[in-house]
Amino acid sequence: MAIKNSQTQERGLAVARTVAELRHAIAAFRAAGRTIGLIPTMGALHEGHISLVRGALGRSDVPVTSIFVNPTQFGPNEDFAAYPRDEAGDLAKLEEAGCRLVFAPDKDEMYPGPQLTTVHVSEITDGLCGPLRPGHFDGVATVVTKLLMMAMPERGYFGEKDYQQLQVIKRMARDLAMPIEIVGMPTVRELDGLAMSSRNRYLGAAERATALHLYRQMMAVARAVRDGGASCGAATSDATKALLAAGFDKVEYLTVIDAESLEPVERVSGPARVVAATRLGRTRLIDNIAVD
Amino acid sequence: MAIKNSQTQERGLAVARTVAELRHAIAAFRAAGRTIGLIPTMGALHEGHISLVRGALGRSDVPVTSIFVNPTQFGPNEDFAAYPRDEAGDLAKLEEAGCRLVFAPDKDEMYPGPQLTTVHVSEITDGLCGPLRPGHFDGVATVVTKLLMMAMPERGYFGEKDYQQLQVIKRMARDLAMPIEIVGMPTVRELDGLAMSSRNRYLGAAERATALHLYRQMMAVARAVRDGGASCGAATSDATKALLAAGFDKVEYLTVIDAESLEPVERVSGPARVVAATRLGRTRLIDNIAVD
Repeated sequence: MAIKNSQTQERGLAVARTVAELRHAIAAFRAAGRTIGLIPTMGALHEGHISLVRGALGRSDVPVTSIFVNPTQFGPNEDFAAYPRDEAGDLAKLEEAGCRLVFAPDKDEMYPGPQLTTVHVSEITDGLCGPLRPGHFDGVATVVTKLLMMAMPERGYFGEKDYQQLQVIKRMARDLAMPIEIVGMPTVRELDGLAMSSRNRYLGAAERATALHLYRQMMAVARAVRDGGASCGAATSDATKALLAAGFDKVEYLTVIDAESLEPVERVSGPARVVAATRLGRTRLIDNIAVD
Repeated sequence: MAIKNSQTQERGLAVARTVAELRHAIAAFRAAGRTIGLIPTMGALHEGHISLVRGALGRSDVPVTSIFVNPTQFGPNEDFAAYPRDEAGDLAKLEEAGCRLVFAPDKDEMYPGPQLTTVHVSEITDGLCGPLRPGHFDGVATVVTKLLMMAMPERGYFGEKDYQQLQVIKRMARDLAMPIEIVGMPTVRELDGLAMSSRNRYLGAAERATALHLYRQMMAVARAVRDGGASCGAATSDATKALLAAGFDKVEYLTVIDAESLEPVERVSGPARVVAATRLGRTRLIDNIAVD
């Protein structure tokens, strides 16, 4: 423990580096009759993460945030090494937001030996980011299971910004009968609509100006297809062309999906989302919004 | 709940059919300061299972036994339909042994929707029963994870008789950081050495007489190879011939393995086990013993 070890008092942020420290601190909150809300993050925190802390506080949970850049969810050609890290800044933001406990383990604490066990979620990982990032969702499902088992919170908080990930985690918790409620929280956006993301730090000034078109085009798709109006294929095709014209280097996908099965839909007749993954320079930007 | 709903009193067996009933009953034990020991079984209970109940009692855990013949761990040509079921007999044995709570869900309670999530343990499932029973250990790891999450016991009790299964479950609990201790309990044997198994009920009288040779031959191998004496290949080859001569229809494997990695060893120089899987008529018999 560092910073404060007064974690059962009404304020103050403690930092646990080991599972034993985490469980010790959580047991103290529990003994005081408090419920726990875990917010798993990879650090480089922004207002979107902080909204998850507020979500926990709004449900009377003690917010516990984990910070761990999980290597197993990055592909060999992805940005694990470059992923932004700013623990001092993260801790300051978390204390300000009312977080009570941070779990910031190193790799050996999270993976003390060869990890032979994998948690796999099928079907809803077959499309979208699944085939584009082989092994990614297995890495996510496995590390989130571990973090949930380490903290055993009443609730786990995740952003809707990673919509497919949120559905994978919800499904995993339900399928494995975890006694933990998975709470999805709305995406937090910049004033021009760009979804907050740790990877926005990669964007140069010109790219940042271009980036706002993603939200605009998703909104255009959602307006066009709502209530079964336009064909989803036509609307997303138009939006894809507009993104490339605006300066995006690639549109990996821009699709309208069923909100639960994540299967593409051609005419909207129930809960649906517009989901997109794009490349802008060296930055991969993903986003999604509800239709309606 | 049935039979008794006085589950927080000092005696008496309650039966929970749903996860909600199970958690309600366990919460009552917890509130009374008791720890929980879960004994997952497929029913058709014998003295081996009852020794697991005693193991829990010996550690001051409240023994909670689950009875569920899990379809996902049987292959398409295996004995799921024929697997013995005797709930009334099981409940009587469990109450007599001091078990306090039985969880006996039906299939829809265990798998309320399509199960998209699988827990997979690699490497230690590559040999022995792994390739002979494709999907078996995924089915076991997944259902045991679910049962552990449903009951959230302090300890889970499993027999050493299914040695590879025990190692898979230990590894899974460790790799996923479950806050649950997995306790292995010694195999219970008939007077002539035959390991107790629900599948022994399949054996006709002549087969039952033949069956005792499995333990004898495993003992012969263990004696021969201990302290790096005989080559494991030679000893197991002799024992395999003896089993076939005694009337076994098939020896799927008879191997000396490292007790932790489950890799075959040729000369014993550390903790090792003799493991065997055989066919006797329509019955598959497995067993294992420690070398030394």
